[in-house]
Amino acid sequence: MDVYISGVGMTKFGRSKDPLQKMMAEAASSALRNAQLERVDAIYMGVMSVEEFVGDSNFATLLADTLGLTGVPSTRVETASSTGAGAFEAAFYAVASGHMRHVLVLAGEKMTHLPTAKTTRILSEVIDRSERRYGATMPALAAMIAQKYAQQFNLSSLKLEDILAQVAIKNHSNGYFNPYAQFRKTITKDDYLKSQMVSYPLRLYDCAPITDGASAIVLTSEPAPIKVSGIGHATDTAAVRHRASFTSFNSTKEAAQKAYTMAQLNPSDIQFAEVHDAFTLFEIIGTEDLGFFPTGEGWKALEENMTQLRGSLPINPSGGLKARGHPVGASGLAQLVEIVYQLRGDAGEERQLERAEVGLAQSIGGLGNNNLVTILERADRKRIVKVGTTRDREGWTLDYHPEIKVSKKSSTPPPSEGVGTLETFTTLYATPEGFRSPLSLAYVRTEAGEVVMACNPDYHSPKELKMGEKVYFKTREGLYVFEKLTLWSRLKHRIKGPAKST
Amino acid sequence: MDVYISGVGMTKFGRSKDPLQKMMAEAASSALRNAQLERVDAIYMGVMSVEEFVGDSNFATLLADTLGLTGVPSTRVETASSTGAGAFEAAFYAVASGHMRHVLVLAGEKMTHLPTAKTTRILSEVIDRSERRYGATMPALAAMIAQKYAQQFNLSSLKLEDILAQVAIKNHSNGYFNPYAQFRKTITKDDYLKSQMVSYPLRLYDCAPITDGASAIVLTSEPAPIKVSGIGHATDTAAVRHRASFTSFNSTKEAAQKAYTMAQLNPSDIQFAEVHDAFTLFEIIGTEDLGFFPTGEGWKALEENMTQLRGSLPINPSGGLKARGHPVGASGLAQLVEIVYQLRGDAGEERQLERAEVGLAQSIGGLGNNNLVTILERADRKRIVKVGTTRDREGWTLDYHPEIKVSKKSSTPPPSEGVGTLETFTTLYATPEGFRSPLSLAYVRTEAGEVVMACNPDYHSPKELKMGEKVYFKTREGLYVFEKLTLWSRLKHRIKGPAKST
Repeated sequence: MDVYISGVGMTKFGRSKDPLQKMMAEAASSALRNAQLERVDAIYMGVMSVEEFVGDSNFATLLADTLGLTGVPSTRVETASSTGAGAFEAAFYAVASGHMRHVLVLAGEKMTHLPTAKTTRILSEVIDRSERRYGATMPALAAMIAQKYAQQFNLSSLKLEDILAQVAIKNHSNGYFNPYAQFRKTITKDDYLKSQMVSYPLRLYDCAPITDGASAIVLTSEPAPIKVSGIGHATDTAAVRHRASFTSFNSTKEAAQKAYTMAQLNPSDIQFAEVHDAFTLFEIIGTEDLGFFPTGEGWKALEENMTQLRGSLPINPSGGLKARGHPVGASGLAQLVEIVYQLRGDAGEERQLERAEVGLAQSIGGLGNNNLVTILERADRKRIVKVGTTRDREGWTLDYHPEIKVSKKSSTPPPSEGVGTLETFTTLYATPEGFRSPLSLAYVRTEAGEVVMACNPDYHSPKELKMGEKVYFKTREGLYVFEKLTLWSRLKHRIKGPAKST
Repeated sequence: MDVYISGVGMTKFGRSKDPLQKMMAEAASSALRNAQLERVDAIYMGVMSVEEFVGDSNFATLLADTLGLTGVPSTRVETASSTGAGAFEAAFYAVASGHMRHVLVLAGEKMTHLPTAKTTRILSEVIDRSERRYGATMPALAAMIAQKYAQQFNLSSLKLEDILAQVAIKNHSNGYFNPYAQFRKTITKDDYLKSQMVSYPLRLYDCAPITDGASAIVLTSEPAPIKVSGIGHATDTAAVRHRASFTSFNSTKEAAQKAYTMAQLNPSDIQFAEVHDAFTLFEIIGTEDLGFFPTGEGWKALEENMTQLRGSLPINPSGGLKARGHPVGASGLAQLVEIVYQLRGDAGEERQLERAEVGLAQSIGGLGNNNLVTILERADRKRIVKVGTTRDREGWTLDYHPEIKVSKKSSTPPPSEGVGTLETFTTLYATPEGFRSPLSLAYVRTEAGEVVMACNPDYHSPKELKMGEKVYFKTREGLYVFEKLTLWSRLKHRIKGPAKST
């Protein structure tokens, strides 16, 4: 059964004094009013860490009650930072099954009331447990991915810095026009450069902020102007170190493949997209993973202004997570609310896109390991169906064939000591509760080819380290510690091999 | 699209040294083996308070990875203590929509590793926030419901005690034969009477235990011997005090009505059921709410041995939550695993029921505010369709017309002081972290007819209080405190009215 969107709503994102259920009720009321409905058949409700952020559980029930929808079935859905998109997906199937007619999807998070170090610790719980023990945070992992991306595609650190700054500048510029955005100010490259280093090379302006907010959508089986064309969802190995590629996300690629197939659309059919820019580089990687631009070239499209509001493929017209804000549970659904505003022509004069008949949202859960891709379309859009060969989809061929490098975890545990190369690294300044700052973290590739996380609190600057250089690693109190391989460390640890250090 | 069950599995419930993901992987492997599948299209995964019990989030991803199903979409679902049933429902819609062929539903919880007072505190977070501030726990609320049930249906405290004991004795007797049960021992009335008072009148043997465990089911759109016939889900006002009835659950009744309607079955068609006996009396109330027995007479059916393993309508052949154990996230799905074992004739000689072609499971979330009813059936069962009048279900009529008393919350706040009647009360001995024991808690009905929660730590025995008696209540430090209305308290608080105390 086809599924349509009959109502959307959201709160202004930012710092709010309201309790979470009140914010969510506000978003829900807007969406229900917009859909001209007073009651629904079910509620699917997304919150990521409500127990830890606000200390409540049984939140699905609490919300139904708060909304005055007592009695209505209410289910909480969670897929880490893609939770809003996950709730949308579950609700989509409920309507698509024919068992439900009108379903309210609701997502939110309240985060700003806690100290930043505590929020950082809660957010870090999505990370693989063994990496968390090193003090790894989401920005630290994203920073290591950024370093690797620059190395892999031959970008100097100045070039990388410029690309990241341009993403932040673009998204802040879009957010300036979005009445729901947390930050309604434009920024300059100078502002970017002055912003605090969070985890080298990522600055504060590379990271989506800590935000309160809620968003809501009403799904219906009754024909309405906006249609849900495709949904795809995929996971990946929780730990980045186990992945075959550090600079793209299999979970986006697999989710996109499913969404395009369900929608019978190709990347070239997509007119605009909301891409999960929790970290600036993730927008670039996202546009590559989604098949909009070739691998390693997403930044060129940015440089050529293609992804600007008036470009040929606008990315994050809302301002993205960067400027609209990132209440972790709500963002995945807020992206879809933005797509609906654009498809309806309701985005406001400055932000409204010229071509807005089909839009896509990509949402990332955890460090790229629970991702969803959703495609929405105007129901009145005339489809130009291509001639193709796919058996069960006559007249349509999927043009999207991303390279999916499947990770192969080694079955033997890595050695407790040895020589390896610095696959990538970061110096983390904003450490979580209980960790000294700064903290240098690295992925070290052992001689057998496995990757281990390692730390060294004595390297206080990223300038002390170099991508690809040889290091010595050793377990100490259950953690790997690394140091640069010098003549002295060779002698100390009795390492054989060429006398000359790399 | 019709939905079938192709595989089930579960761990032995009890105290386990394994981490949660290992237990869940064990249950999942059994279910996948049972379904003869290696891969599925999606995972729906239920855990209630994984962040607080084990300190992980992003658990849906972690599990896909642990199961060796990296890449497969994985979504966490939560509906408080009915989570396992909630995950099953979400997965059901995914398959029913036609978008998924094989879906793994997985549910679990790890609880025994924490101190009991901490576990009690975590479990209490499902309770309405304002009631939690009084130190109210799930057993305390259930105890107040038990007192009310006895008063409403004219049962002496000795009679109530005997009924509750008989539920515990029956379920322990069933659990004795269940290899997956936490407690495989029969108990006597004497054992029951000797067990510690948790919250008067509920003893340890009235409460489901703290348990580790996991359960799993594979749903498929390909015809298989067991079919999902009906699912219903409903919520209710979070706080019991706002409900029109304290002795039945609207959320069960509404969920049952939906499940019977979807299945085109009536309560009289159900041959056996798993009923959420988190507290012994809830089994009695459940059998009434589900339409098996008239309101206030569920205990008579128990006395007449109808609900025994060899009775006409066996209830909790598995041993129920009481004896099988209650890992909060897993129970709702474990009930369905038991129904499948029975429908397949795989329950083992002692436990296998004679009539097992259609079974029902009822799962309670929170204090009866997020409930699900699921009906499973042998696909080869010959349906005797009744002649009826329901328009869109020709030849079938729903015989089930439960009385649903909708709660009416007052819009004016209750007075800060006044005289009221003791609607129901309990003396709580097992208090949560940070509360003195014993603690007397009550629902006091004000003269305007509203109900407030009130406490008094100075009544150390339930014998000091009487249902329905007049009390004086007053707010102190933001909480209502109550005391018996004596001549002395009348004078002290200058209460007008008849000089004679009730």
